[in-house]
Amino acid sequence: MRRIDINCDLGESFGIYRLGQDEKIYPLITSANIACGFHAGDPQVMRTSVALALRHHVAIGAHPGTPDLLGFGRRGMELSREELETTLIYQIGALAAFAKVHGSQLSHVKPHGWLYNAAARDAEIARTIAEAVKSVSSQLVLFGLAGSQMIRAARDVDLPFAQEAFIDRAYEADGTLLKRSSAEALITDPEKAARQALSIVLEGKAEAADGTQVEIEADTLCVHGDNPNAISVLNEVRNSLLKNAVKILPFTLTEG
Amino acid sequence: MRRIDINCDLGESFGIYRLGQDEKIYPLITSANIACGFHAGDPQVMRTSVALALRHHVAIGAHPGTPDLLGFGRRGMELSREELETTLIYQIGALAAFAKVHGSQLSHVKPHGWLYNAAARDAEIARTIAEAVKSVSSQLVLFGLAGSQMIRAARDVDLPFAQEAFIDRAYEADGTLLKRSSAEALITDPEKAARQALSIVLEGKAEAADGTQVEIEADTLCVHGDNPNAISVLNEVRNSLLKNAVKILPFTLTEG
Amino acid sequence: MRRIDINCDLGESFGIYRLGQDEKIYPLITSANIACGFHAGDPQVMRTSVALALRHHVAIGAHPGTPDLLGFGRRGMELSREELETTLIYQIGALAAFAKVHGSQLSHVKPHGWLYNAAARDAEIARTIAEAVKSVSSQLVLFGLAGSQMIRAARDVDLPFAQEAFIDRAYEADGTLLKRSSAEALITDPEKAARQALSIVLEGKAEAADGTQVEIEADTLCVHGDNPNAISVLNEVRNSLLKNAVKILPFTLTEG
Amino acid sequence: MRRIDINCDLGESFGIYRLGQDEKIYPLITSANIACGFHAGDPQVMRTSVALALRHHVAIGAHPGTPDLLGFGRRGMELSREELETTLIYQIGALAAFAKVHGSQLSHVKPHGWLYNAAARDAEIARTIAEAVKSVSSQLVLFGLAGSQMIRAARDVDLPFAQEAFIDRAYEADGTLLKRSSAEALITDPEKAARQALSIVLEGKAEAADGTQVEIEADTLCVHGDNPNAISVLNEVRNSLLKNAVKILPFTLTEG
Repeated sequence: MRRIDINCDLGESFGIYRLGQDEKIYPLITSANIACGFHAGDPQVMRTSVALALRHHVAIGAHPGTPDLLGFGRRGMELSREELETTLIYQIGALAAFAKVHGSQLSHVKPHGWLYNAAARDAEIARTIAEAVKSVSSQLVLFGLAGSQMIRAARDVDLPFAQEAFIDRAYEADGTLLKRSSAEALITDPEKAARQALSIVLEGKAEAADGTQVEIEADTLCVHGDNPNAISVLNEVRNSLLKNAVKILPFTLTEG
Repeated sequence: MRRIDINCDLGESFGIYRLGQDEKIYPLITSANIACGFHAGDPQVMRTSVALALRHHVAIGAHPGTPDLLGFGRRGMELSREELETTLIYQIGALAAFAKVHGSQLSHVKPHGWLYNAAARDAEIARTIAEAVKSVSSQLVLFGLAGSQMIRAARDVDLPFAQEAFIDRAYEADGTLLKRSSAEALITDPEKAARQALSIVLEGKAEAADGTQVEIEADTLCVHGDNPNAISVLNEVRNSLLKNAVKILPFTLTEG
Repeated sequence: MRRIDINCDLGESFGIYRLGQDEKIYPLITSANIACGFHAGDPQVMRTSVALALRHHVAIGAHPGTPDLLGFGRRGMELSREELETTLIYQIGALAAFAKVHGSQLSHVKPHGWLYNAAARDAEIARTIAEAVKSVSSQLVLFGLAGSQMIRAARDVDLPFAQEAFIDRAYEADGTLLKRSSAEALITDPEKAARQALSIVLEGKAEAADGTQVEIEADTLCVHGDNPNAISVLNEVRNSLLKNAVKILPFTLTEG
Repeated sequence: MRRIDINCDLGESFGIYRLGQDEKIYPLITSANIACGFHAGDPQVMRTSVALALRHHVAIGAHPGTPDLLGFGRRGMELSREELETTLIYQIGALAAFAKVHGSQLSHVKPHGWLYNAAARDAEIARTIAEAVKSVSSQLVLFGLAGSQMIRAARDVDLPFAQEAFIDRAYEADGTLLKRSSAEALITDPEKAARQALSIVLEGKAEAADGTQVEIEADTLCVHGDNPNAISVLNEVRNSLLKNAVKILPFTLTEG
């Protein structure tokens, strides 16, 4: 029997500013990557997010980013190894406290934005991230781009990991994501997204933008909360998976 | 046999900015209150501080403040109950992660600056702080002004607490501290500080600025790292205490 | 012939976070109060806002707030006289540079949120604000609550001022605004808002929530951009004013 | 008759944090580059800095940096052209307001830290900076590394510029600065610094670390305020220059 995790980046509001449609998404996913106050999120949003995750039996993950609220953590930033490590430890710890206060704990960590992309291609950054996460807890699952340096780094330091594929983003022939600047980068058609999800889960491959087949080994599927059709996409993907006897479960439950 | 804890606010540097003389102070104290990145401190400073504390067998405490780096957490700030709670949980969690990474854990929490003073006189703020700390862990000791609302709140919610007295600050007849604007507010004479420390520890009282005796029940003595004579004061106080058979030990070791 | 200014707080987005419906509002108002990066706004939003204002012949005003992005400048904050002065000068200068780059200049200043309310009732804060604004330019018009301490302070330091009334907020019998916590605080019915606007402009009074008539001498009418009906309210108010031969013009054009 | 300007980066304190020895340096220089609140500085420090500059007849310049207080503007940061432009306009405007409040105006702009270095070697960044500065005022002098892309960009957009050389930093044979990681990077010997200053001003060249002569055409000499010997260096440099009939005057006075 097959199983898959569905994750989403959540808790990205800040103060008066609202982002995303978190309340509608929690019921449809199994893992939440919650912003930790550096690139997005604030203490109150974090608490609310943890409570929502628990109410919907969604695994709680930290989604740390660069200290760049203005740039939403998407801008490249030269961080020393020490700066990167401590930036991650700080944010993971902050979210872990909210999980603890609610009688729970973190199950995973997924770097955000520029950090995520940098760690996918840069072995050194990936290694620093994997080691920083492991220094907090060797039970935390590192979410990273399937087949990327981040997965390799987790394997190297013996940290549990989940390979991530994207439901609503088009792929290049080499397995990377089509740049957001491309008109076809974001998949907003629920049926097309569902086909991609099914193909990845059942066959281990996706059709790239140029029509070639890309091999993708995925443990968790990411949907973007800022996708205007996120809810329809999620519903269609879930229905397709369930019809095909794929169970949708948090990745972490497979551990142990 | 008598014992007393000596604590100091540390880890208040930020980025390129250095504050205090932490490396000289750690060998002379038993509890460190480490800033958590809101009013002062940053992730790298926090890690360094935790490492220094462990090297010198100093108990690690969180020293959370308001989100006001520009005002060093000393400016009054209208925080809702929810904002205050989550602000504390966030900061305590962040520091706890560094303690965990170094194989240790937090032993206490001491609010900083305006929060400390507000909690000393305002029962509602004190209660919110005590409950927030307890929500993270009922093993954390709350450090608060001896005899203040903060101590009462800790007692009310059944949270361990340590009553704090000041080595290098002059008292008013009513047990509050002489305002910093007064010329005599800060005690920089090491011998005078030592006399005050001894009087508090051995007799449970201090001589107020007006000559009257104030009763002070203290579990921990605070020295200010920004006192220009902090090192001399600490050395003199330590010598006086040791000569009088008072053991200088972290407060938390008395627990259990 | 009667004339009135209509103003709105704009440019309150920050980074990825969007707030308000600025593009729809600019065509309907005559003065824009643009956030300056402390409680809201950022350099790019400020430039865009200035450009939009100029395109729609809207007078450009600075809308400075406390350094509290997390609290959107709505939380009380203990600022010294010096801190308040320099906080205002800094923000006014920053926005003025964008106006200058676009070949224009600032016409007015309206404090935001907590500062606005504090200045309405506290003579000392009002005086500090009036003096700070005047120190930058004695040609800047200070927008403040009609009949409040802020108007008195502007008069005292001989700074031009505009008395502000609210189109979409209900009044108390004493001329203050009904608290936002009240269900009737926000007027969302366009016709009711138009009646209030007309009554203020033509008769110098508004009907308070308790039915009594409050005298209000207004030079400018404020509409809230976060009012869900802001566009309908503005259209109805404009139609009513124009039908009654009231010209809608920037306040500053009356000067000179 | 020869003349030279001496400049220093100042106003880099923030809140409770003090950096540099500004009060001792102002009497010894002719141009101050004042931090604008992004990488360092705050509104109160800016006002104090402007007042000090005026008291000592020192030309006031803006010293804008990246929005990275934690990294002191020294970390690389991916800024779009628009972000960079507006970041500069904002900061220049903020400082200009303080100059205006004190009856003065800005004479120059010198980018800080990573921006300075990036603009020295990257023509596109240099061009963006030159255009942004010119958009605020075509009278502002751009301070940049002698012979660098920043000077070229200023020339290209017809913005006044001052070529900058360093008194207390060792040069490479190619005219760039020896990396700070090198033991000889910082010149702390006042006599050596004075020789380098004289050689640059009188002969248009400096001796590089490897003994070769580097041609340097300088309009202004920079001394680092964080040089432990800054005051001795400045005194020795000034004496040497004056003995050799070089006048020490703000660069901007040469204009017009």
